[in-house]
Amino acid sequence: MSFKLPKYIEPNFEQEFLTNAPNVTTIEVLKDGVAPDNYHGTTIYPEYLKIDGKWILAKESRMDCVMTVTEDNDVAVKEFRNLHAGDKVIVGRTEDASEGIYVYTGGFNSEEEEEETFAFRAGRSRETAYSKDYDDLYDALKYEKENGYIVWVLGPAAVFDKDSREAMQALIENGYAHALLGGNAVATHDLEAATIGTALGQDIYTQKSMKDGHYNHLDLLNKARRAGSIEKLIEEENIDNGLIYACVKNNVPIVLGGSIRDDGPLPIVISDVYQAQNEMRKHTRKATTVICLATQLHSIATGNMTPSYTVVNGEVRPVYIYSVDVSEFAVNKLRDRGTLEVSTIVTNVQDFLVNLKNNLTE
Amino acid sequence: MSFKLPKYIEPNFEQEFLTNAPNVTTIEVLKDGVAPDNYHGTTIYPEYLKIDGKWILAKESRMDCVMTVTEDNDVAVKEFRNLHAGDKVIVGRTEDASEGIYVYTGGFNSEEEEEETFAFRAGRSRETAYSKDYDDLYDALKYEKENGYIVWVLGPAAVFDKDSREAMQALIENGYAHALLGGNAVATHDLEAATIGTALGQDIYTQKSMKDGHYNHLDLLNKARRAGSIEKLIEEENIDNGLIYACVKNNVPIVLGGSIRDDGPLPIVISDVYQAQNEMRKHTRKATTVICLATQLHSIATGNMTPSYTVVNGEVRPVYIYSVDVSEFAVNKLRDRGTLEVSTIVTNVQDFLVNLKNNLTE
Amino acid sequence: MSFKLPKYIEPNFEQEFLTNAPNVTTIEVLKDGVAPDNYHGTTIYPEYLKIDGKWILAKESRMDCVMTVTEDNDVAVKEFRNLHAGDKVIVGRTEDASEGIYVYTGGFNSEEEEEETFAFRAGRSRETAYSKDYDDLYDALKYEKENGYIVWVLGPAAVFDKDSREAMQALIENGYAHALLGGNAVATHDLEAATIGTALGQDIYTQKSMKDGHYNHLDLLNKARRAGSIEKLIEEENIDNGLIYACVKNNVPIVLGGSIRDDGPLPIVISDVYQAQNEMRKHTRKATTVICLATQLHSIATGNMTPSYTVVNGEVRPVYIYSVDVSEFAVNKLRDRGTLEVSTIVTNVQDFLVNLKNNLTE
Amino acid sequence: MSFKLPKYIEPNFEQEFLTNAPNVTTIEVLKDGVAPDNYHGTTIYPEYLKIDGKWILAKESRMDCVMTVTEDNDVAVKEFRNLHAGDKVIVGRTEDASEGIYVYTGGFNSEEEEEETFAFRAGRSRETAYSKDYDDLYDALKYEKENGYIVWVLGPAAVFDKDSREAMQALIENGYAHALLGGNAVATHDLEAATIGTALGQDIYTQKSMKDGHYNHLDLLNKARRAGSIEKLIEEENIDNGLIYACVKNNVPIVLGGSIRDDGPLPIVISDVYQAQNEMRKHTRKATTVICLATQLHSIATGNMTPSYTVVNGEVRPVYIYSVDVSEFAVNKLRDRGTLEVSTIVTNVQDFLVNLKNNLTE
Repeated sequence: MSFKLPKYIEPNFEQEFLTNAPNVTTIEVLKDGVAPDNYHGTTIYPEYLKIDGKWILAKESRMDCVMTVTEDNDVAVKEFRNLHAGDKVIVGRTEDASEGIYVYTGGFNSEEEEEETFAFRAGRSRETAYSKDYDDLYDALKYEKENGYIVWVLGPAAVFDKDSREAMQALIENGYAHALLGGNAVATHDLEAATIGTALGQDIYTQKSMKDGHYNHLDLLNKARRAGSIEKLIEEENIDNGLIYACVKNNVPIVLGGSIRDDGPLPIVISDVYQAQNEMRKHTRKATTVICLATQLHSIATGNMTPSYTVVNGEVRPVYIYSVDVSEFAVNKLRDRGTLEVSTIVTNVQDFLVNLKNNLTE
Repeated sequence: MSFKLPKYIEPNFEQEFLTNAPNVTTIEVLKDGVAPDNYHGTTIYPEYLKIDGKWILAKESRMDCVMTVTEDNDVAVKEFRNLHAGDKVIVGRTEDASEGIYVYTGGFNSEEEEEETFAFRAGRSRETAYSKDYDDLYDALKYEKENGYIVWVLGPAAVFDKDSREAMQALIENGYAHALLGGNAVATHDLEAATIGTALGQDIYTQKSMKDGHYNHLDLLNKARRAGSIEKLIEEENIDNGLIYACVKNNVPIVLGGSIRDDGPLPIVISDVYQAQNEMRKHTRKATTVICLATQLHSIATGNMTPSYTVVNGEVRPVYIYSVDVSEFAVNKLRDRGTLEVSTIVTNVQDFLVNLKNNLTE
Repeated sequence: MSFKLPKYIEPNFEQEFLTNAPNVTTIEVLKDGVAPDNYHGTTIYPEYLKIDGKWILAKESRMDCVMTVTEDNDVAVKEFRNLHAGDKVIVGRTEDASEGIYVYTGGFNSEEEEEETFAFRAGRSRETAYSKDYDDLYDALKYEKENGYIVWVLGPAAVFDKDSREAMQALIENGYAHALLGGNAVATHDLEAATIGTALGQDIYTQKSMKDGHYNHLDLLNKARRAGSIEKLIEEENIDNGLIYACVKNNVPIVLGGSIRDDGPLPIVISDVYQAQNEMRKHTRKATTVICLATQLHSIATGNMTPSYTVVNGEVRPVYIYSVDVSEFAVNKLRDRGTLEVSTIVTNVQDFLVNLKNNLTE
Repeated sequence: MSFKLPKYIEPNFEQEFLTNAPNVTTIEVLKDGVAPDNYHGTTIYPEYLKIDGKWILAKESRMDCVMTVTEDNDVAVKEFRNLHAGDKVIVGRTEDASEGIYVYTGGFNSEEEEEETFAFRAGRSRETAYSKDYDDLYDALKYEKENGYIVWVLGPAAVFDKDSREAMQALIENGYAHALLGGNAVATHDLEAATIGTALGQDIYTQKSMKDGHYNHLDLLNKARRAGSIEKLIEEENIDNGLIYACVKNNVPIVLGGSIRDDGPLPIVISDVYQAQNEMRKHTRKATTVICLATQLHSIATGNMTPSYTVVNGEVRPVYIYSVDVSEFAVNKLRDRGTLEVSTIVTNVQDFLVNLKNNLTE
């Protein structure tokens, strides 16, 4: 296996502008959920905060949050809504250490890339050559399976097709998934397929629409609500295939965030979206690779709460984010909304999953 | 004005298959949120239920729900999650009156359309001729302004541009909006524009990215949370323009459903998505025209809960749904998810809104 | 192998409306390239023409052409521009035999399909389940390799990526291509890749833009023009890989139609587009399967000249057309422009080709 | 009117690296259509060539061509295919004057733009704020009407809709078009609409498909071929509306380049694509603004042959290129293929044209 994590180079803290920098300033929160003016907003990059004369790295970060100094002089990254009165919020909008805040973007750059003044095909689109992206991803996932934390973010299209649904199941069963994030639809239609063989009433292999098939997912949801839990449903319906089944069997945690589009919902779905964010973030805090497939809503939500780096066993390493969709607009939107360090692949999610299965499992 | 509502032709209840039909059968709900097996699932079309020998029209319907018979022998259309133990759910999956359930799709068809066996350009796409759609919409909206209930469903792109934001504001101020549905983003960026002139930090006219502009919406959200309500925020920040301002000033109700993508959120946002659905449905129950712009999530959510007909002053009339987006996939998805009676226009939401303003206000 | 050609059921010529039908009427062409008024325009379906009391099937048809009766009482299907003074053009716009013209669409229908009044996801899009389409295509191509005539229509994206370019080369080398249609770009960038490893200056594996890489395709074109032919270029540059190389080596004919976008062009490119159409049609007359990848221009051009059936060894059989593109609009456009019998797959052309190679070659 | 052309700042030719630079080197062409190795390839930017001690600006340039020194020591920019034996081609691949070739990109930059390290929404998409782009375009076109040369490049979608077809006609009649480039389709369907009211058989206002409407464009083409010229057809069919009519009446030259998709074609269509390129380039040599609508093929073809600057009355000025399409991919492709200085607007071409008419004509 050729995969090697890039080495993180810490800032040289002996540099004068860092040794001379003041400690951060904090202001106390007066009202729950409201930051003081001039709060510092987080980025996706490693940020060092000078506290009591020492430069502390924010360890489980994400963008568009605020930082508080904890009682033991560590840094916590918090969503505004999770602020409590009394929290000490770091203030200042500089990033150059002059207020004790240092945003450090150069940790993984081994050498400078020289750039041509002109080149055709500079963006990434359906016409990009993805062979190497695939090869790199295969390598990375083999490494991450053992050493990382792979988070999947899936839209329902992942289970609308027999081959892709089986491919994703195989990836879970072979250890390539440490958490599954999604919404009510992907789970509902996976379970619909597991029990009736259809998704939204359409056979996931033959594409034939079943008679009265529009009842299928409603029936499944009704049974699930009667059963009271996914585990109970699997037992009662003797479900033995699919993504949800594989996750439950292999103890891969599932977080399903509710949305206003939902029918049902399944008992497992979290109806309060901010509570859902909290549950999702538990996994993005640990994530080393995030793969987002065919869901704009969940991809951007997850992208928002995933930093460009994480700390594993005391070592800073990059977090890899992949966004795969047939639409350039969808994959680019992640970037447009601030998730800059994302690798995009423009293809059908079905082919993508089958490729991964073919190259990662036997 | 040339607009005329199509006349609804009631079924002829003297027809033998209707006079001979039995009353509906009901089964009691045993557990909150769980329907009995064989429940009847609703469609978007007028459905008549035979109760105590009389054919009763379900009046505030929507698809993918169940029907209960109320104490006074009327019909209520309920989401599964809103069922309570003891509710009497109508069962049966036929639509032909044989179980007392009659789905009636022919009420608005004046004459049969003859169809060519072959024609080019059968679908609707960017290449469709929309001149008449626009003209029809202008006519309809003038009528609906006085006689109907126009519900707008807006994504943030509606406020990313100066002209379209002003156009939408003018439409609200001129009585062309009876309710506004959306999410945290459209309101946040409208208020960001109202206070700072930017959307996500970018000037909505010059497109210039402001320095530190990525703080703008976070600052706005923080101020809003401190103010505690939209009304208070408008007062404190002296906001005098934009969609939210116009709605508040003109008493147009706003429902903002939360999503897992949200920053903030604004105080007005409903964090529980199923409660948000309930609030949205209060307006789709009354809706006569629904216009969905540049938001897949909210469009499908609203489409799901909007029937093809409604009853106004005792008369059955159609509900018009428009879906406008630059992507054929987005506008077609509404149809693919069951919202069959939708008119789609493939264009930039900005030009659409400016067109409406130019033709409906002076 | 499970593939079986559907059986074609000839019309029952004993039916009264056919026995009673008159012979076709013809009118002579007065001016080259101009049909008489009331000419009969061809469809993609089998058409029978009554000539001298006998029903004659038009054998090498295509849509939007006219039919002439030949000296030996056969039927020729001709483009308007190819009409010559004196040609006897069949006139009449009926299809029901009343003017001796019988358009027969039921030849391959084994059984009637019952259709649901309502079903979700009726169209074909990125969310369609393609597993069975792939399986059917693999089966069909194994059959066609030996018994049919497979025509490929390729846009340049097919050679922008290392894996897909190698996959297409393998398909050619393994007998899965009987003709290659395309434009100047696909051939130029394939030869650019063969000689320099780039497409439009970008490495087809690493995606790195070469210094001065925008010269690469111009240099290749200049060399090709100096060499005077593709064969000579291959020899002089020692080219041993790629699509064009594989076609030349395996005697697979290549037709490259010129376009106003072309640089160069390569010596092989046909600069007159109507002469190019004539050369393309030589292959679509023989085609049994046509696969169009990532090129709207060439796909529609080829689709226009491909009928839904062909006659092989005296037997009528269907012609299969596949259109593969990442854009629903592109694949649907073929249908919107009259190529009704097309199977569409919405995915990245690269994954599509790799799938085919994995399943058809070893 | 607020429009002002940006001032072009000539290079300071007193700079040492320019005064010290050698004259260009040329090599004679040996074979028609083949450049010598190491030829210099042109860019879209102003290029100065040192000839006989003087810096000469290439005046009617375009990218991806070669330069020859003419008998009177001027510079001609030629496509490879138009090279003749004996032409003296400038060689050298530097751009810094070291071989007598100076590519000068700074002529129109008034002040340096400071760039933020991070900003949301950096690309241009359906979510971009286009209000100012429109305002700028209105201003520019008013200026260009009198002082420039406006070239329109149109796909058939421009005439598929009544309002947009009338808008484009009005723009032509009001002097906003100096040349019209396109293909067989836009002209055919415009004339189909002028004579029968349909485009591809579909009424351009009501969208109703006419019975036998698929004959309409074939009939029109047949009549046109019989008439022998567009002018004759207009006379014989008493055509009094549409784009083609307006161009003919107002002496706006039309260039229609043939393509392999064409039916017919119309008599005016140029069947040899490289001859078509030559005719198109006659107009792009003069162009000061180019507006490309809803045609990828013709837009890229035209973009390829349009430089970023032109010389009007001895003054260097920018050439403005607009690309308008509902697809981000289509508008971005122009950029990906090297047309860097293009302004893109993502919207329906119909709304775009109506906007222009509303703001430019009365």
